[in-house]
Amino acid sequence: MTANGNNQTKMVGKQSILFQNAPYIIATASVAGKKESEGPLGSLFDIVNEDPMFGQNSWEEAESELMKEAAEKVIMKAGLANSDIRYLVGGDLLGQLIATSFGIAELKIPVLGIYGACSTMGEAMSIGAMLVDGGYADRVLAITSSHFAGAEKQFRFPLDYGNQRPYSATWTVTGSGAVIITGEDKKISNPAEADVVIKGITTGKIVDYGIKDSMNMGAAMAPAAFETIKQNLEDFGLQPSYYDRIITGDLGDVGSKILIDLLLEAGHDISKNHMDCGVEIFDKEKQDTHAGGSGCGCSAITFAGYIYRKLKTREWNRVLFLPTGALLSQVSFNEGKTVPGIAHAVMVEAK
Amino acid sequence: MTANGNNQTKMVGKQSILFQNAPYIIATASVAGKKESEGPLGSLFDIVNEDPMFGQNSWEEAESELMKEAAEKVIMKAGLANSDIRYLVGGDLLGQLIATSFGIAELKIPVLGIYGACSTMGEAMSIGAMLVDGGYADRVLAITSSHFAGAEKQFRFPLDYGNQRPYSATWTVTGSGAVIITGEDKKISNPAEADVVIKGITTGKIVDYGIKDSMNMGAAMAPAAFETIKQNLEDFGLQPSYYDRIITGDLGDVGSKILIDLLLEAGHDISKNHMDCGVEIFDKEKQDTHAGGSGCGCSAITFAGYIYRKLKTREWNRVLFLPTGALLSQVSFNEGKTVPGIAHAVMVEAK
Repeated sequence: MTANGNNQTKMVGKQSILFQNAPYIIATASVAGKKESEGPLGSLFDIVNEDPMFGQNSWEEAESELMKEAAEKVIMKAGLANSDIRYLVGGDLLGQLIATSFGIAELKIPVLGIYGACSTMGEAMSIGAMLVDGGYADRVLAITSSHFAGAEKQFRFPLDYGNQRPYSATWTVTGSGAVIITGEDKKISNPAEADVVIKGITTGKIVDYGIKDSMNMGAAMAPAAFETIKQNLEDFGLQPSYYDRIITGDLGDVGSKILIDLLLEAGHDISKNHMDCGVEIFDKEKQDTHAGGSGCGCSAITFAGYIYRKLKTREWNRVLFLPTGALLSQVSFNEGKTVPGIAHAVMVEAK
Repeated sequence: MTANGNNQTKMVGKQSILFQNAPYIIATASVAGKKESEGPLGSLFDIVNEDPMFGQNSWEEAESELMKEAAEKVIMKAGLANSDIRYLVGGDLLGQLIATSFGIAELKIPVLGIYGACSTMGEAMSIGAMLVDGGYADRVLAITSSHFAGAEKQFRFPLDYGNQRPYSATWTVTGSGAVIITGEDKKISNPAEADVVIKGITTGKIVDYGIKDSMNMGAAMAPAAFETIKQNLEDFGLQPSYYDRIITGDLGDVGSKILIDLLLEAGHDISKNHMDCGVEIFDKEKQDTHAGGSGCGCSAITFAGYIYRKLKTREWNRVLFLPTGALLSQVSFNEGKTVPGIAHAVMVEAK
């Protein structure tokens, strides 16, 4: 087929890719809001801004600003210049991706805008890894963001309305996480630390079990996470115990229980090594965040601030990172449509 | 860097990729509405539906339906089954891509959702070509859609309001165009016809000249088209005359004039071989469409129905296909923000 003739070794099973020369994640950066800084992972974020407006005039501009800060920070941490980045692959939750369009325009990097709701970081890292591994980019910046107030305005109610939220509802994370993916084995940190690589990916299909409750997105997304994890295990012939952690994006309490049950019924027990970024990022009891955190930024800053460190220190060696997305809009919800889900898995390993 | 070691030959100049074994576009499909069928290209579309609701209950469902029909049609025309498609890469103009999410869910194909406003078909074909060329997919379905009524509701006014439109405004095309990209040299049509391949791509940056008028998107997008065309010519060391046609997406009358002027100032005369899908698709005088057609579907069905045929018959041998996007949302417009533009170029050639 192609010049290198090794297609067969790249495509694995029905929906997965195995990278023979796994691309490196050489740097991560995270920007978070005040509430996120007060959560259990608060000390791990690179930049915390206590002003929810991030010095701007609207929630949308605030999100653009925090995304720009994350992009600039990760480029700086990697010791690079904007012109060293071949592609920026990223997106956000706002209609027509306006946080992204206005946030990163001034960086002057070629942009591939993507949308997978809260699964977007998984999609960005998947596309980024393929472009780097295939020789189409020397360095890719994968980035996503979300903002609590912008998301409430976009999907639910204006904050001033002060609506009550059911316990199944999640709290959109204010934050932006970014990673730089490259084929170069460039050690920019302590040589004692592990290299972190993207070993493979499993790209999700849209899964719709008919859930219509936008205040229970965990339940809407759990079937998509189930299908992608099951396919990952099947495609690579693995048991769940292969992974130190199987980490979903923002299923929260409710969705996590459903996911564990669905996989158990299919013969896979992930109850011992499952973790959910939405559950980790907030202290449910103290922070009144109900089922947990959510949003594109939730999994992105948890990866950038927390998961990446665990791999660098070899506390974990193999992680399945699986951001999960609920494919609804205000319009589709108001028209009584279901909330389909999608989940994109990235196999991240210490090397 | 990677196993095949030929990175240098893939990345060309600052923003471009050259495919050594250019992937084939083996089939295209187009679904269009009544107004599009009455335009100059009307007889070229595979499916025309005179019902603007496409048998559904809302404009959004109508767009989902037309996208699904285009996907099914292109898979059928290529003699394939859904399971033969490794990735669907696509998107639409609606907030959170709901036309796509609901349109193609039942196809059960792994999905990479993308957003580049009306440049989305260029982005889909660019990513699709890289994934096929790199050995990450045997076949990719690239698809986009737009719907006049859904777009008016999303970006401007409800149709019932009956607002007047300035002459610089464009008319969103109701349609969906799809292509199948593969590394296999599979001739499914008349052997006398040319193979159509993707020779290279140039990925755009976000360009913002400060235009704020959402009724003059041609002017907002022209600078992005200018920058991408200029970069394409520089990266490959080409003159505009290399191409039989340089085809922008939906600049319309106003944007096309600006583009030609900008390039002329930079020393490139494209006045002889420039074409714009938005200008071609409607008869301005008879159809009252003002500056021309627009929308993700505009360039997609013009490519699928018209440009592809011209290449198959070798009437044209080299085309630069350059869908153009205006990165605004209703929210960003109402907040008084500018309309940044983006344009992704695909070099499509008869072989």
